[in-house]
Amino acid sequence: MTTHSVSTVFNGGMAFTANINEHELRMDTTADDGGADSGPSPKRLMLASLAGCTGIDIVSILNKMKVDFSDFSIGVHAALSNEHPKIYNLVKITYKIKLAEEDKSKMIKAVTLSTEKYCGVYAMFSSFAKMDTEIDYL
Amino acid sequence: MTTHSVSTVFNGGMAFTANINEHELRMDTTADDGGADSGPSPKRLMLASLAGCTGIDIVSILNKMKVDFSDFSIGVHAALSNEHPKIYNLVKITYKIKLAEEDKSKMIKAVTLSTEKYCGVYAMFSSFAKMDTEIDYL
Repeated sequence: MTTHSVSTVFNGGMAFTANINEHELRMDTTADDGGADSGPSPKRLMLASLAGCTGIDIVSILNKMKVDFSDFSIGVHAALSNEHPKIYNLVKITYKIKLAEEDKSKMIKAVTLSTEKYCGVYAMFSSFAKMDTEIDYL
Repeated sequence: MTTHSVSTVFNGGMAFTANINEHELRMDTTADDGGADSGPSPKRLMLASLAGCTGIDIVSILNKMKVDFSDFSIGVHAALSNEHPKIYNLVKITYKIKLAEEDKSKMIKAVTLSTEKYCGVYAMFSSFAKMDTEIDYL
């Protein structure tokens, strides 16, 4: 069984520092919530996690397919529920990428493989949010 | 309706940089997965998000209750499923904290309020993982 562990220490105010495999990550809230905005807010990290997870899948799959690409970026837009606890209930991922016309079908295949088979973060999000994806060819 | 957006740009190799409300966060994979380990892995960010979310709740609630505390940290230990897509299916949160004997019941109350009412990340995790919490008084 594979396990992952992350330790997180309180730094005063509303700030915490997580140690993730030797990488330190500071989290905080904005002044509105009593923090000093010294790092990203914890909830939004979920969206970065989603973008990174599916992004790494896509790069890995396109590399295996020998597809040349550039200007790859991923936007994640999420709506929050109104009542506590506030969860992301609608999430849209927009993949932007530049590649040859004949490789567009491979990009579609890479996105499908990531969202339907490989990306664990996407699968976890699918448990609580309605998910949507689109590809924007540059 | 409140919405959150995160943009993430591919940096070559397996690395991505997310922009989260003006905070930049680099993500990468380890060499085993073709990366350069230049930042935390995306999936583990979910665990930091969980620790930060519930941690900020606890601090906020203890402050409102006028409870003095120190040495507050949060450990998150998660087991991954065996098959793709690999998701966190068992998650244990350990809160470590130093506070007066008579304030222990308030800490229990703070944890309960966070996990049952306020922490959206905990609620999202509850959709796909069996959750467990414990408090370790220092």
